[in-house]
Amino acid sequence: MKVKLIKSFLNSINNNKFFQLFIIAVIILSALLIGAKTYDIDPEYLKLITYLDLAITYLFLFEIIIRFIADGHSLAFFKKGWNVFDTLIVTASMIPIDDSEMILLARLVRVFRVLRLISIIPELRILISALIKALPPMGYVLLLMFIMFYIYAAVGSFLFDDINKVLWGDIAVAMLTLFRVVTFEDWTDVMYETMEVYPLSWMYYLSFIFLNAFVFLNMMIGIVIERMQAEHDAYNLEHDEGEISDLYHIREDTKVILARLSELEKQLSYQNKSTGQ
Amino acid sequence: MKVKLIKSFLNSINNNKFFQLFIIAVIILSALLIGAKTYDIDPEYLKLITYLDLAITYLFLFEIIIRFIADGHSLAFFKKGWNVFDTLIVTASMIPIDDSEMILLARLVRVFRVLRLISIIPELRILISALIKALPPMGYVLLLMFIMFYIYAAVGSFLFDDINKVLWGDIAVAMLTLFRVVTFEDWTDVMYETMEVYPLSWMYYLSFIFLNAFVFLNMMIGIVIERMQAEHDAYNLEHDEGEISDLYHIREDTKVILARLSELEKQLSYQNKSTGQ
Amino acid sequence: MKVKLIKSFLNSINNNKFFQLFIIAVIILSALLIGAKTYDIDPEYLKLITYLDLAITYLFLFEIIIRFIADGHSLAFFKKGWNVFDTLIVTASMIPIDDSEMILLARLVRVFRVLRLISIIPELRILISALIKALPPMGYVLLLMFIMFYIYAAVGSFLFDDINKVLWGDIAVAMLTLFRVVTFEDWTDVMYETMEVYPLSWMYYLSFIFLNAFVFLNMMIGIVIERMQAEHDAYNLEHDEGEISDLYHIREDTKVILARLSELEKQLSYQNKSTGQ
Amino acid sequence: MKVKLIKSFLNSINNNKFFQLFIIAVIILSALLIGAKTYDIDPEYLKLITYLDLAITYLFLFEIIIRFIADGHSLAFFKKGWNVFDTLIVTASMIPIDDSEMILLARLVRVFRVLRLISIIPELRILISALIKALPPMGYVLLLMFIMFYIYAAVGSFLFDDINKVLWGDIAVAMLTLFRVVTFEDWTDVMYETMEVYPLSWMYYLSFIFLNAFVFLNMMIGIVIERMQAEHDAYNLEHDEGEISDLYHIREDTKVILARLSELEKQLSYQNKSTGQ
Repeated sequence: MKVKLIKSFLNSINNNKFFQLFIIAVIILSALLIGAKTYDIDPEYLKLITYLDLAITYLFLFEIIIRFIADGHSLAFFKKGWNVFDTLIVTASMIPIDDSEMILLARLVRVFRVLRLISIIPELRILISALIKALPPMGYVLLLMFIMFYIYAAVGSFLFDDINKVLWGDIAVAMLTLFRVVTFEDWTDVMYETMEVYPLSWMYYLSFIFLNAFVFLNMMIGIVIERMQAEHDAYNLEHDEGEISDLYHIREDTKVILARLSELEKQLSYQNKSTGQ
Repeated sequence: MKVKLIKSFLNSINNNKFFQLFIIAVIILSALLIGAKTYDIDPEYLKLITYLDLAITYLFLFEIIIRFIADGHSLAFFKKGWNVFDTLIVTASMIPIDDSEMILLARLVRVFRVLRLISIIPELRILISALIKALPPMGYVLLLMFIMFYIYAAVGSFLFDDINKVLWGDIAVAMLTLFRVVTFEDWTDVMYETMEVYPLSWMYYLSFIFLNAFVFLNMMIGIVIERMQAEHDAYNLEHDEGEISDLYHIREDTKVILARLSELEKQLSYQNKSTGQ
Repeated sequence: MKVKLIKSFLNSINNNKFFQLFIIAVIILSALLIGAKTYDIDPEYLKLITYLDLAITYLFLFEIIIRFIADGHSLAFFKKGWNVFDTLIVTASMIPIDDSEMILLARLVRVFRVLRLISIIPELRILISALIKALPPMGYVLLLMFIMFYIYAAVGSFLFDDINKVLWGDIAVAMLTLFRVVTFEDWTDVMYETMEVYPLSWMYYLSFIFLNAFVFLNMMIGIVIERMQAEHDAYNLEHDEGEISDLYHIREDTKVILARLSELEKQLSYQNKSTGQ
Repeated sequence: MKVKLIKSFLNSINNNKFFQLFIIAVIILSALLIGAKTYDIDPEYLKLITYLDLAITYLFLFEIIIRFIADGHSLAFFKKGWNVFDTLIVTASMIPIDDSEMILLARLVRVFRVLRLISIIPELRILISALIKALPPMGYVLLLMFIMFYIYAAVGSFLFDDINKVLWGDIAVAMLTLFRVVTFEDWTDVMYETMEVYPLSWMYYLSFIFLNAFVFLNMMIGIVIERMQAEHDAYNLEHDEGEISDLYHIREDTKVILARLSELEKQLSYQNKSTGQ
């Protein structure tokens, strides 16, 4: 009895709008603290920040526990990806770190608390889900682009290795250099350097740029059309049903009318016969 | 009686096409004067410009007063955003500034007079309204991008602070540096610098570029599809009605035909019975 | 009689496919000659090129005269824009230029001969017409962007004039600098320079970049949607007619059926009465 | 009998899923070897790589022979472009090269083995086919852009030849420079240099950038709309058929109903007459 009371009490806290706004405010404060720490601050203020940081950590822990209890079933709670995400972030920032070398890691963990803004604002959660769903249809195009990068990087590394070790030393840096070329970042500097040895190497760069632009553009256009088709199908499923069912009923009705007319004709012809007699 | 006469007279001036073209010409002249002032000009011409500037200011004041009186109700006039906008710009350039330090501000205020071109050309006013309406659906995506920038900037500031204070000194300049990376502006210079200390820091830059490109592309595609859907719905509401009402009437008619046929059958069967007797 | 014979003979030449392919080949040769002249060439070959150039000029003249006569009416010929275009290019390259200073102009005139490729290939002519038609709907957006450039350039010129005369000297060079910023061409160099004096000037650049990107994106999306709507309307006009006319006929038929049924009922009730009597 | 048995056995191998996964694994291994060779490796490992390389070559040969026999008809096998492609890549890497100068070519040939990933994964094969189909509609736009590049390059080479031989020496390097300008790669450096001699040369660059952006944008929009129209037509062909056939049948039915009613009317009027008599 008592447990149930606590549960429903915690549930009402959890669903309380002010409580949620308060948590959002705490997350934003935590984000601001992270930003503040990147500035050179007075040691006195630094102490304040450390205390605030600790308070936020415990507040987050408190909120997760409330949500965990309010949800009732412990396992069901961890079946939602966002709950696991929140729990991980909070527990990670609970680990005490004394080692001065690990202080950077501790700071980084605190940075990811800002991501809790995404998990707490429903609109952002929906946006992320939509973005994750948009990934798979791009899969094979990205694979194709990776193959293109790999082949060009291998060729570039074989040919231009002696010209500039930093840019073409091995296949990994060559791929980075090619990505730079694709972003048009001082790509002519890269090209002019190799053109001094291989005057025709502009063909290598231009063909790569055109291939990438072409594949990328087609991918984008493909995605636009695919999604529009999906929206169009969804729309038709919803709206055309009325029209189609109307047509169906009219079609059925005309059939019945025809059948009845046949019956009428039969009756009339029978009548005619009997009258004609 | 007299007031009404003046009002209708001012109204006819206000709606006069030549008056409106004259005001547009004055705004363009005012824009040209602003441009002229950025050149080194003869002191003599400068005097002319100052007089012209004053004349334009009073002309603008005169035009607003005409529109204000012609409109009749003083409060209704200020309910339209564009009227408030025009009044603010004109009154701001009326304030006398003697202080030589404030001369820059006075100049800037005069620059905003060019914006009156937007408020006086209806097509531009419609365009601006459409643009403002296009902002809200982008809101959450921009928030998501801001969170991404904030997190990456915090991480960048923690890691690369010692490498280059100018680029990564605090979270604000780090965000500016990240914006620079996103515009591909000498981003490899930024990357190569940090790669000397953290050889794997290319992952930081590439993941940021890909994340941003991905979110940005999806936002654009999303907007295209959303607006198309809106247009499509508007179109259907307008055009399909005819078709659907046609179908509705046919459906009703077939029902009536069926009912009448039933009636006919009944009559015939009654007749048959009576005849058969 | 003789004139007519010549006319029809010239017409048959003009419409001959081999003649048209020959003219295209001549235009391409003329384009190659122009390209060749940009290289340092042997004086002997240069002579050959000069002779070829002359031959091409007379060939072009000859072709235009044929087309002019074949077309019959002199004035109708010049009503087509492309004919005027061809005539201008050919006559311009006929003007004898001895002055060595004018040699550059003569060369430039010859370059525009390459444009005849567009006027002679129908597909390119259609493309150009489509492109010209696409301009007007962009008009007001471009005007809006120009106003934005003008205002920002005026502000930039007032504020940053003393920092860098080359970039911000007057409103014209300031607009060029802003265009450079919009193309992300070393824009951070421009920004960092002014940020030394005005630390908040990053707001000037970022607001300009965002405004431009936002207006530009919306213009693009607007054009896509507008053209799709146009295509959709054209499609519906063409295809839906069948469906709509079908519906119309069914509607008319059901009305006639109802009328006839009424007639039948009347007859039957009359019959019943007479039989019943 | 025996031949048939072998054929069906080879066919079963060829269609075996594990065999195909094994070949994909071999192709990936071959790609990794190519990548590995770009690093400075221990001579001992190099030997291993050479042996692995040889093994892969024979494995590929073996797989092609299996597919060739399993397919049965030798000529039909080479009618499929992808089979020719695979055969060429495998045979090219079989040619023994002892000449040390040719070693680079041998390496390059091995790089193209990675392309076999495309020919063996059906999804990538479909993607490539779709991309190749997307090329022709872009043909005339690309021709138009080439003409634009050619004309501007000729003009640029004539005017700026004396300013910078490296950038504007002949029409070929001028076209490369213009492509650089179009990618916004340090384009202002190119412009500022020529503006020192021709102060108005910014018109040359800006007009070129705007023309290209305009043509490119319109091409993209055109492709989006064209493909959407194609999808829409395909969709209508598939889905509207039902609706249209429904309408057709209703139309036919109403015609029959009208005919039968006429018949009924005739009978009734005849009856009336006979009864009336």
